[in-house]
Amino acid sequence: MASLRWFSSEYHDLNGTAVAVLPEPPTSLQFSQLVHISRPVLIQGVEMSSTRLWDNHYLAAAMGKTDISVAVTPNGRADAVTQGSDGKLYFAEPGVEKMPMSEFLSRLSGGTTILKLGADDSDVYYLQSQNGNIFSSRFYEGASDISEFEALRADIPSEISWCSEALGKSPDAVNLWIGDRKSVTSIHSDPYENIYHVVRGSKHFTLLPPTEGWCVKERMYPHGRWTRMIPTAPLTLVHSPDVPPIRWASVIDPDIRGNLPPEAHPIGITVNAGETLYLPPGWWHHVRQADDTIALNWWYDMEMRGISWVLLSFLRGESNALPDNETTSSEQVEDA
Amino acid sequence: MASLRWFSSEYHDLNGTAVAVLPEPPTSLQFSQLVHISRPVLIQGVEMSSTRLWDNHYLAAAMGKTDISVAVTPNGRADAVTQGSDGKLYFAEPGVEKMPMSEFLSRLSGGTTILKLGADDSDVYYLQSQNGNIFSSRFYEGASDISEFEALRADIPSEISWCSEALGKSPDAVNLWIGDRKSVTSIHSDPYENIYHVVRGSKHFTLLPPTEGWCVKERMYPHGRWTRMIPTAPLTLVHSPDVPPIRWASVIDPDIRGNLPPEAHPIGITVNAGETLYLPPGWWHHVRQADDTIALNWWYDMEMRGISWVLLSFLRGESNALPDNETTSSEQVEDA
Repeated sequence: MASLRWFSSEYHDLNGTAVAVLPEPPTSLQFSQLVHISRPVLIQGVEMSSTRLWDNHYLAAAMGKTDISVAVTPNGRADAVTQGSDGKLYFAEPGVEKMPMSEFLSRLSGGTTILKLGADDSDVYYLQSQNGNIFSSRFYEGASDISEFEALRADIPSEISWCSEALGKSPDAVNLWIGDRKSVTSIHSDPYENIYHVVRGSKHFTLLPPTEGWCVKERMYPHGRWTRMIPTAPLTLVHSPDVPPIRWASVIDPDIRGNLPPEAHPIGITVNAGETLYLPPGWWHHVRQADDTIALNWWYDMEMRGISWVLLSFLRGESNALPDNETTSSEQVEDA
Repeated sequence: MASLRWFSSEYHDLNGTAVAVLPEPPTSLQFSQLVHISRPVLIQGVEMSSTRLWDNHYLAAAMGKTDISVAVTPNGRADAVTQGSDGKLYFAEPGVEKMPMSEFLSRLSGGTTILKLGADDSDVYYLQSQNGNIFSSRFYEGASDISEFEALRADIPSEISWCSEALGKSPDAVNLWIGDRKSVTSIHSDPYENIYHVVRGSKHFTLLPPTEGWCVKERMYPHGRWTRMIPTAPLTLVHSPDVPPIRWASVIDPDIRGNLPPEAHPIGITVNAGETLYLPPGWWHHVRQADDTIALNWWYDMEMRGISWVLLSFLRGESNALPDNETTSSEQVEDA
């Protein structure tokens, strides 16, 4: 723990909290240099002209009656630590409900909500399937890759050329995100190079460098999923003992003063429509958004050769794991 | 210390000990990717045609009567931990003597030695001034940059184009090295990107990754310098109390079995004439050479943004330094 504190202090002294802004996309060589530095960069002018047509009318018409998978929670906090009715804390995954794009859009803030049976008008819907819902790795392997959003694919570049060239690979997944201010993504980090483009609305990111991971206090939480027992029932959090516990940040909202220790140096950055954030592997991010926000992201596998992977593991406290306990399943589960 | 062991074990499990070989120089983008991976690479086919003319006759004729600065030691171990006549261990810097190239070449193994007054025929001479003896940073700043080897500059590229482009900068120093099998460079690491080209002969590198720095057991040693009290005297090791102690590896020869702990995974690689080694920052290297070996190296400043610098400091045990003791001068000086 002392060495994690040392790392975060030294890193902050050297790097500060500035986020570079590029007025136009980098060349592949420039982006390769940015990948080595591994700090977030706000990039303007990334060509995404087809998505400018994406008003609600266009999206609903293009998608027609095709069902899409939408995350639903009672509180807007999918994939987040949430208190269950038993008073315990769970890592709560959202329910997933299928509906046409037009119906989904009507359920967002500002939409004309037409409630389904079972739905509470305070339930929060967020298109955030993040499984490569536009293009998955199968697509780049030339295999069959069925997308619920087939009708929108032609508007979305399957590669970010300067990123693919710099990394020497195709994306692992491309995702579409549509939501409103009621949805918040809890702070977490991904082992991916991430190119995050805002099409409409805006996203506010609160970032911590990988060195400050100890500040979010990852712990093991039992798994829960928001579920309707019958289609007309309200969402309840269901714990299945068969699903292993999940390691997740205990800090619920890093934007509230005092939730992070004073050693943390959060970086706040708003990504507006037409802008693109480069978010390097291991950077912690908490994400809020304006109503009516659409975004796309391209995930690329991080470089596994060299020291980056080992370093990110170290910064998450892996070196303190017991040698004979690789599953971490025996780590303490903390109660509320 | 436990976390340093963990780091080295995880790094080795992921990366092994293979050294990639490129049959031709990388593009700047490819080299940028290699810099991010930060592992040594043997590169063939780097264009250095003017140096193919460098036989002893050419070098002596080109340099004429110009004096050059040559390192001299009684044991071939410049910049190395050496036992003094008092039985204590010192970090011994070489003496520096000036002589024309022709005289220097005659003093190498295989040369026709003409002894100077004071010189012992077992004294070992090594051209290894490593201060930017060909081009220093002043050269790239457009300032006056006087080199003892002005007559050879036209044969030596001031930049390695793919490296300068990848790193977005000019070299910090370019050095010429000429020596024989009696000279050995003790294991150490440099905070530089290093392009090391062998012109003639061969160099054998024993490498350890930055993660195995703890295996070389850096300690603080009092400083000594090989000195002739009068020009006709033999070399003696002189300690000046005004010079602060030096942190250096206690492992004298990593090629002798048992000198490194079993957790070390040394990588042996021979760089032959015409070949080039990319040695990333922080990699530990012990270097031996064949008789009659000439090499050139280009040092580039490492990227200071991001985490690389902090990581290398950590791997050298900096996080264990006492907060109020930044000079490390109070660390234990070990005796023989």
